[in-house]
Amino acid sequence: MELTVKDMDIATGGTLVAILNKKDAAKLDLHTLDRIKVRKGRRVETVIVDIAESPKSVPPGRIGLFEEVLDSLNAKNTNRVSITAARKPLSLKFIRRKLEGHTLNKKEIEQIVWDIVHNKLSQIELTYFVAASYIRALDPNETYLLTKAMASQGDILKFSRYPVIDKHCIGGLPGNRTTMVLVPLVAAAGLTIPKTSSRSITSPAGTADAMEVLADVSFSARKMRKIVQKANGCIVWGGAINLAPADDKIIQVEKPLGIDAESQLLASIMAKKYSVSSTHIIIDIPIGHGAKVRDKKGALHLKKGFEALARKLHMHVRVIITDGSQPIGNGIGPALEARDVLQVLMRYEKRPMDLERKCLRMAAELFEMCNIKDPYRKAVELLESGAAYRKMQQIIKMQNGNPKILPEDIPLGKFSYTQYASKNGKVKSLNTSHVSHIARIAGAPEDKGAGLYLYKHMGDFVKKKDKLFTIYAESSSKLKYAKDTLKQLGIMDY
Amino acid sequence: MELTVKDMDIATGGTLVAILNKKDAAKLDLHTLDRIKVRKGRRVETVIVDIAESPKSVPPGRIGLFEEVLDSLNAKNTNRVSITAARKPLSLKFIRRKLEGHTLNKKEIEQIVWDIVHNKLSQIELTYFVAASYIRALDPNETYLLTKAMASQGDILKFSRYPVIDKHCIGGLPGNRTTMVLVPLVAAAGLTIPKTSSRSITSPAGTADAMEVLADVSFSARKMRKIVQKANGCIVWGGAINLAPADDKIIQVEKPLGIDAESQLLASIMAKKYSVSSTHIIIDIPIGHGAKVRDKKGALHLKKGFEALARKLHMHVRVIITDGSQPIGNGIGPALEARDVLQVLMRYEKRPMDLERKCLRMAAELFEMCNIKDPYRKAVELLESGAAYRKMQQIIKMQNGNPKILPEDIPLGKFSYTQYASKNGKVKSLNTSHVSHIARIAGAPEDKGAGLYLYKHMGDFVKKKDKLFTIYAESSSKLKYAKDTLKQLGIMDY
Repeated sequence: MELTVKDMDIATGGTLVAILNKKDAAKLDLHTLDRIKVRKGRRVETVIVDIAESPKSVPPGRIGLFEEVLDSLNAKNTNRVSITAARKPLSLKFIRRKLEGHTLNKKEIEQIVWDIVHNKLSQIELTYFVAASYIRALDPNETYLLTKAMASQGDILKFSRYPVIDKHCIGGLPGNRTTMVLVPLVAAAGLTIPKTSSRSITSPAGTADAMEVLADVSFSARKMRKIVQKANGCIVWGGAINLAPADDKIIQVEKPLGIDAESQLLASIMAKKYSVSSTHIIIDIPIGHGAKVRDKKGALHLKKGFEALARKLHMHVRVIITDGSQPIGNGIGPALEARDVLQVLMRYEKRPMDLERKCLRMAAELFEMCNIKDPYRKAVELLESGAAYRKMQQIIKMQNGNPKILPEDIPLGKFSYTQYASKNGKVKSLNTSHVSHIARIAGAPEDKGAGLYLYKHMGDFVKKKDKLFTIYAESSSKLKYAKDTLKQLGIMDY
Repeated sequence: MELTVKDMDIATGGTLVAILNKKDAAKLDLHTLDRIKVRKGRRVETVIVDIAESPKSVPPGRIGLFEEVLDSLNAKNTNRVSITAARKPLSLKFIRRKLEGHTLNKKEIEQIVWDIVHNKLSQIELTYFVAASYIRALDPNETYLLTKAMASQGDILKFSRYPVIDKHCIGGLPGNRTTMVLVPLVAAAGLTIPKTSSRSITSPAGTADAMEVLADVSFSARKMRKIVQKANGCIVWGGAINLAPADDKIIQVEKPLGIDAESQLLASIMAKKYSVSSTHIIIDIPIGHGAKVRDKKGALHLKKGFEALARKLHMHVRVIITDGSQPIGNGIGPALEARDVLQVLMRYEKRPMDLERKCLRMAAELFEMCNIKDPYRKAVELLESGAAYRKMQQIIKMQNGNPKILPEDIPLGKFSYTQYASKNGKVKSLNTSHVSHIARIAGAPEDKGAGLYLYKHMGDFVKKKDKLFTIYAESSSKLKYAKDTLKQLGIMDY
């Protein structure tokens, strides 16, 4: 059947979809979520059918295409294309098998991941896979196969070094900026640590957002390797490199219900480590009310999962369980967190000691894994001698930043509001999710200078008129939104 | 926040969605699938957030609304509306509980059904519910609660009669038009049978499509009750009445993977029966390759489910398991099926005997349930005496049709193609899903006269040059599509 393209002027952000009028769909006996092949000249793309009931959005004789499909076919409004019925993706059968409780084999898992990566599944279909993996938890071998499939259907970076270090913190804790201290510390010890990090999705800043305050973070795999070859380490944005691309699409479908299938979480993290050829990895599981993992039991279960998966992947992993009851560091938001990091590396007196202690512990664990003697003392030495800071300067320079920048030079939002204590007391609780939410409303992470600075942490004594925290924003309206939200939510009890 | 409406010119067909530009969403810290309240004047609607990454589809300062939301707010392009963040629907928490293996209580199930009926759940969220009900099969009590919730969140029709009869065939079998024979037969016996039927979704004709060839099928609940009061029975389209409205939305999400959660199936069917206050119900489960239920074991399991659910609902149910290995009757498609039905009722010599036998059996089972003596003989009498036909004429007349129409008067598609046998043989198999598919491509059910007439059934002897089947279509192009498909698929082996 020949149809005329209608540019729908919308990007779906993934799934490849075409809209047919009800009448044209009936001619080929097509239903919603059936598949068709759309052909323009030599180009052909298999897409999911959606059906327009009225001629208003797509009249008979036309086919509504979204940006992704237009790009793939190199098609424009009013172009002619031909369509034919196509089979549903093979993976639907395998997803159904998983729903029914069967164990998936290598080929089946690879096909599912392939269809996810290539946008062949609708959101409903992908949701069935995630739901099935959640309820019918993937067994250790399936998790291993999923990890390998996710990694190998993206790029794999090889480094001619051993060991190759990596770290990961299970998310959910604002300000937890250990990567930016740990990478220069580990690299200063002569170890290789090619670190890729994410941008924030729901937090006030991801490592990539905070690092971007100091340097560029978008590099090709080739450029990234060059930096690592010279500096031993880097801190770049993983999104610029095609590592384990199925992962983001799966996460998108997990968010609405806030579920986190353990096997998916394991595969998601370890696939990215596998993609950069890591050999020694430290994993930090913060536990607490504001963190992703709520209690020690859950953390220990997850720890076992990481250890089992790492063995199958021939990787060395060490899992530490840390305090996740409150934010780490003082600053929340890209610029404020970058200031915290530089203060630790530059040995400022007012540096956030909780962040420093955590980084030293993680470095020591890694050093021990790599058979470095006196690992904790070694970590302290590298930090106190300025070796770690000099390494950070080298990395910043290689990533096109200004290596001489001082913490106080980093600009913060011009509009600010400081909350003072109205009475004497002791900080009893700090609501991490409210902290995150307010920092985001103030503009973080898009506005680098926006966020929240904490003068007090849990257990600290507070005197009347003491500063409690300052909210920074880059516009007065955003500051107003943040203050309005603060009135409703509150952050600190004392 | 105040925004200007952009009419997106698309109907989502359900879920209430608004598209915000990325920048506006950031101001309120909103993410995809969060909820907002949109207010215009006194009207307010809670909708799901979708985020436009580029300003092309929705620029900052605007809000893209789909038809359902525009209607609900009585809003038009360029109107001003205000938005505020809203909570996610309560039912998400309950769906998550079900995913995690908990048993849902009455309040939780009612909330989920309410949110489904009112389009408050995204497709992803609804899919999680269906997946959870599929894997973590609802227990008998949950199924009962779901049935009651689905029924009571629509209209409930009451009839001051006892018993109130109903019937249901588990779908999948083309031509299985028992309702149109059974309703007049049962009504002729003086029993009340207020039958609502569906239109086809994936088959060549639903009962409502075939009945529409003879009479109107869209009636209000009030008009339907009037017909039943006079004629004891009716054959109307359930879609015109607001019965168990959650059902269709659930079915939509089940289709992509072709799964059929047994508890959902039970609740779906029984909720509609409960909505019309049925007391005595016969349920037909055809088994066979082309039918929804493939084997006897599955049918027996389903039978038990129906019986247990009916007991809880204080309804009498009888389940029969029948042959579903081939289409029932000779005609496939609305007009051809209506011809079959009239031929049975009018005692034509060439009437489809398989359809007649099945209807007599079902009537006899129902009569027995209602303590009518000699039930099978009674059914035969009502059919042979013409009492059932006269009752059908009365129903057709009350539904604004022509009661004097003859089978041969019902128009068929002008374009036809007959396939003849190329050799002698015996029909070994008849592919029901290919029959359906080809009948649909020929134009059924939208084109009433389109479809397929079978001269031979399984086990019949075939002589060279015998007619095997005729395809009817209302346009030459549709006949061509159907013939092209026939070449690829085939229907009969002999």
